[in-house]
Amino acid sequence: MMNRRDAIKTWLSLVAGGTTLGFADQPKPESPTDLVAPPPEHEAMHAMPRGWLGNETIGILMYPKFTALDLFGPHHIFISMAGAKVLLVAKTPDPVATDTGVKIQPTTTFADCPEKLSILFVPGGTTGTLEAALDKDTREFVADRGEKAEWVTSVCTGSLILGAAGLLEGYQATSHWMTRDSLKEFGAVPVNRRVVVDRNRVTGAGVTSGLDFALQLLKDIRGKDYAETVQLFSEYDPRPPLDCGTPEKAPKEMLKLLEDMFAPFGKQVTEMAREVRAARAN
Amino acid sequence: MMNRRDAIKTWLSLVAGGTTLGFADQPKPESPTDLVAPPPEHEAMHAMPRGWLGNETIGILMYPKFTALDLFGPHHIFISMAGAKVLLVAKTPDPVATDTGVKIQPTTTFADCPEKLSILFVPGGTTGTLEAALDKDTREFVADRGEKAEWVTSVCTGSLILGAAGLLEGYQATSHWMTRDSLKEFGAVPVNRRVVVDRNRVTGAGVTSGLDFALQLLKDIRGKDYAETVQLFSEYDPRPPLDCGTPEKAPKEMLKLLEDMFAPFGKQVTEMAREVRAARAN
Repeated sequence: MMNRRDAIKTWLSLVAGGTTLGFADQPKPESPTDLVAPPPEHEAMHAMPRGWLGNETIGILMYPKFTALDLFGPHHIFISMAGAKVLLVAKTPDPVATDTGVKIQPTTTFADCPEKLSILFVPGGTTGTLEAALDKDTREFVADRGEKAEWVTSVCTGSLILGAAGLLEGYQATSHWMTRDSLKEFGAVPVNRRVVVDRNRVTGAGVTSGLDFALQLLKDIRGKDYAETVQLFSEYDPRPPLDCGTPEKAPKEMLKLLEDMFAPFGKQVTEMAREVRAARAN
Repeated sequence: MMNRRDAIKTWLSLVAGGTTLGFADQPKPESPTDLVAPPPEHEAMHAMPRGWLGNETIGILMYPKFTALDLFGPHHIFISMAGAKVLLVAKTPDPVATDTGVKIQPTTTFADCPEKLSILFVPGGTTGTLEAALDKDTREFVADRGEKAEWVTSVCTGSLILGAAGLLEGYQATSHWMTRDSLKEFGAVPVNRRVVVDRNRVTGAGVTSGLDFALQLLKDIRGKDYAETVQLFSEYDPRPPLDCGTPEKAPKEMLKLLEDMFAPFGKQVTEMAREVRAARAN
């Protein structure tokens, strides 16, 4: 087994070199599904310590009006996994517009997505998320790949889609604080924690939890050393200039107002859950 | 002046309603540059307390091989500024590929970008960042809009582009820890802090500093209440599962190796700075 020095060096040449830094003379990805996959015959593959080089296939769901940051936090961490393929999977090959209208090109369609994913990851959103959960094709795709995946994961309201696909029944899970309790609609057990791991289900809280979520998952998959190196590389040492990031920390008045404003959305979630159950019963 | 309750309610109907939640029946953006601008005649505009509704124009630079998370952290905060236009500005109207190959559609070209920006924001990257700094059109665009902008800002190695454009001379600034000292090449004073504010220059450290950076800027522009509401809405209460996010916290061996690996990149930065100085002298 190579020593730690060589391991990190090889890792960097694969991850940083292959994607970000361009140190290594790696072939450029030719097809979209080759994104950041290192050359399979790379000499380092035989010398790498167990766990430092993998061959995961990570499928990230994109759907109209998802929230960009829900995706790009975890994506930044996933892409650091040397040897992994990271796919942006959408129903059609067309660019997908986020909830703020930014158009992003998927790499893979539902039809082209590998059957067996190492990680299925679903980002959140609001009305777009409900629409995705109500879309039969999307729900069936998530249910199918989720049942076969090694890890079934989400950030923010993405867990509502996992729930609608029947993947959270009997599992502890979380969501954006505003929709956390709605997870009960899908037979899940809501937990007030930033990242909830229950067997192979890993769910993150609202939007910005994506980095904590993905680092936790990376630690579980690739080990502590690997995750620490990625954390240092990403300079992830958060220092929020304010301390109002949870309902418990917020002024009561502000919280009450946000809750009141979101009440209609909560009702829409309940309605979605009812429709999904009805569709499944038929 | 309306009370706090009405203010938050109005804010939500504009921000959450207009972009994320779809509560309000706002017209959908028709041209790309209309992204999330509320209707100018919205009745709330006259009733909003000072600072809760603005009309900022925010220009975010996109260039080949930028790092997606550098952009989408701050973008998530900027987009919450009711009344602001958030533009993704690139040299040409074509989709821009990030350093991991994700293609993202800009909204605005250099030629179409308003002269006077409230915020100019530049994300980082690695080889792509050096290439952007060496590109005369990009450098001149950044220099021109930066000289006229109210706030000149960056995250990660984005500060190298600001520096190359001559915008950091005599300013305190920061960058990814690996390139922070290189800011001296551009006459800046490197500071080891997650977010550095010097007059109207606001720079963030590596990649993940984007949220801390943007919340700080939001607080300075829209005030504490506004920034806290956005923080709660984004559930920004980070809980990294590991504690290795800075050189000071990392094992010495890991740090030394990363530094060694990055030494060639540091030389490329020095070379870039020399070329830029030579170009300016001619």
